[in-house]
Amino acid sequence: MMKAEAIWNDIVRIRSEAPLVHNITNYVVMNTTANALLAIGASPVMAHAVEEVEAMVRLARALVINIGTLSKPWITSMGKAAAAARQRGIPVVLDPVGAGATSFRTETAHRILADSPPTIIRGNASEIRALHYAESETKGVDSRHDAGAALEAARQLTKKFGCVVSISGAVDVIVEGDRSIRVANGHPMMPRVTGLGCTASALTGAFAAVNPAPFEAAAHAMAVMGIAGEIAAEQSPGPASFQMHFLDALYRLEEEDIQSRLRVESA
Amino acid sequence: MMKAEAIWNDIVRIRSEAPLVHNITNYVVMNTTANALLAIGASPVMAHAVEEVEAMVRLARALVINIGTLSKPWITSMGKAAAAARQRGIPVVLDPVGAGATSFRTETAHRILADSPPTIIRGNASEIRALHYAESETKGVDSRHDAGAALEAARQLTKKFGCVVSISGAVDVIVEGDRSIRVANGHPMMPRVTGLGCTASALTGAFAAVNPAPFEAAAHAMAVMGIAGEIAAEQSPGPASFQMHFLDALYRLEEEDIQSRLRVESA
Amino acid sequence: MMKAEAIWNDIVRIRSEAPLVHNITNYVVMNTTANALLAIGASPVMAHAVEEVEAMVRLARALVINIGTLSKPWITSMGKAAAAARQRGIPVVLDPVGAGATSFRTETAHRILADSPPTIIRGNASEIRALHYAESETKGVDSRHDAGAALEAARQLTKKFGCVVSISGAVDVIVEGDRSIRVANGHPMMPRVTGLGCTASALTGAFAAVNPAPFEAAAHAMAVMGIAGEIAAEQSPGPASFQMHFLDALYRLEEEDIQSRLRVESA
Repeated sequence: MMKAEAIWNDIVRIRSEAPLVHNITNYVVMNTTANALLAIGASPVMAHAVEEVEAMVRLARALVINIGTLSKPWITSMGKAAAAARQRGIPVVLDPVGAGATSFRTETAHRILADSPPTIIRGNASEIRALHYAESETKGVDSRHDAGAALEAARQLTKKFGCVVSISGAVDVIVEGDRSIRVANGHPMMPRVTGLGCTASALTGAFAAVNPAPFEAAAHAMAVMGIAGEIAAEQSPGPASFQMHFLDALYRLEEEDIQSRLRVESA
Repeated sequence: MMKAEAIWNDIVRIRSEAPLVHNITNYVVMNTTANALLAIGASPVMAHAVEEVEAMVRLARALVINIGTLSKPWITSMGKAAAAARQRGIPVVLDPVGAGATSFRTETAHRILADSPPTIIRGNASEIRALHYAESETKGVDSRHDAGAALEAARQLTKKFGCVVSISGAVDVIVEGDRSIRVANGHPMMPRVTGLGCTASALTGAFAAVNPAPFEAAAHAMAVMGIAGEIAAEQSPGPASFQMHFLDALYRLEEEDIQSRLRVESA
Repeated sequence: MMKAEAIWNDIVRIRSEAPLVHNITNYVVMNTTANALLAIGASPVMAHAVEEVEAMVRLARALVINIGTLSKPWITSMGKAAAAARQRGIPVVLDPVGAGATSFRTETAHRILADSPPTIIRGNASEIRALHYAESETKGVDSRHDAGAALEAARQLTKKFGCVVSISGAVDVIVEGDRSIRVANGHPMMPRVTGLGCTASALTGAFAAVNPAPFEAAAHAMAVMGIAGEIAAEQSPGPASFQMHFLDALYRLEEEDIQSRLRVESA
């Protein structure tokens, strides 16, 4: 069972060690995810050139790959960076933004999975389903839309690729093999802010940089996202003030906030 | 004559249907326009790769093309996406950012106009003049700087390309053939925030997604921009708080706000 | 000795003349630096296509080159733009983001320095050291980490390239040949906001556009950064509200703020 104390220990480590998190991410969220990493205490760097991604991975303690605004040269860099990260043994978080929406995105996500399996996949239920069912060539079946389909897809993905899957939603579900944990923190305004899912992936990278257990790192990141979201919502009449208060809340987070708000259940 | 009720009907439809608006837009505004679309109730997606723009257009209910930070590969994608949108019959909004500033931008805008005429062109007076006068090879004449020149340019463009032209400014003017409407809502701080013109284009896409009359959709979008701007200005000591309150105002907009603030005149 | 009155004179000129500042900058900060330039009163434009950078430079009164998210085509454009700016005699600010982190960045910065020496280099101590010591092939020596090493590196760079060097930090140091000035304004929250260094470079461009003395322009920009940061910090519980209040403070800055807060010393 996830404890507030363990989450707090990770935050203390992030704040004191300021791990460098290398992001190859989409244009929409570069600013906000860099700010989220700074707010939690990590050091973000964005670098995508094929000429430097391997050198940057050598300086980093985690790599976050996000396919939200793809193009061919970026895919090449993502592949090189993921391979370098795997070789160095640093954790890799893959955010398959829009997998299932276009075959270009689904296939890119699959290529990264097949060539350099990430440590953690962080996506929403629809993306996680698309990754698995396209993978198993049963794309389009009705069961994909069942509530349980994403969980089943996640289980299969974790077994096939030896990774953790973190499914964000009203209740987040983190899955590794047959075990899973549910994080019920969060607020309905979160999907009304662009890129908070991408922020979850970036923070997952920061937690994985300091916590050698990816299942814990992924769960801790989602709990912190949800708790900061709840704090932000209390002060925010709309999504733009929410984004601001959310980042301020990450920066100001105290152990007491986590202890009083954490809502998890094993499953 | 535009009525508050008709604007409100569009907003209700956007909020209930959450139409997907596909944006091929510039790096500067990707985050803020995605947030504006979410705030009004639409679903934004940003995708520019030549490999996926046609697939993404097939999922979308409107396409917004913005040439603010151009490069060759993006122009190819814009052309493919515009052609796919035209074939599917979904509305296309073109924002010719910086047309007239460099020939690269003016020519790119012209190529898009010629190959796949958009449903609505949304620009400022200088961009609209540049589109027409370069088109008619009288670029540089003094009349371009007259107050009436943009209106005359807009009339010619709407006739030549069968589209609506929406000119933003202290008073916005929406033109279709010989009819036009003037929207006097707005606030002087709006040009001090980067990319609010681009936001106007993105919202125009959202309104066009739910309203089959492009002239109305364009006018409704500009009225909502101006009204949200007025609400934001009342709470904002500077342009950054204005940007935040503007997005919150879009999210919180009520029919009463539109009824009490709408200032339009037919022309 | 830098006087509040001289800084204020530059601000008055920026506000009245709204000089066009052409930025070839990184994706992370495009929105926030455009907003900073608008807030201080300048006119930003972002343009990176090789087909238009020279045309855009011809319209601009300053060029800002920032290598924060590099790739090959952008490097080509940076070179062309810098050469065009030099030929026209407009000031060029180079921000060598991440120089020293990867050889790709260090070498790109060196190529720009060698081909088209900028008017002002604006970086942090680590970047300035990396530029000089890699240049003199003594990269990696311990002295690079001394407090004085960045100042010595700056002196050498200003002599070799005939430029001003502006080193940002808790105390900013602006160097030209053997003279230097120290600006002690600022706040510890500034490094917790992504891209405020890039904002400093953009504002340096705006001041250089109206002040023909690059040493003064660079120092005035850093003083304004620091003073706006102090004003913002007084109202901000965290880094995201800080970013907002910082931009609002730039917009609202009055001569009295500068007179009462300026903290400089010659060195």
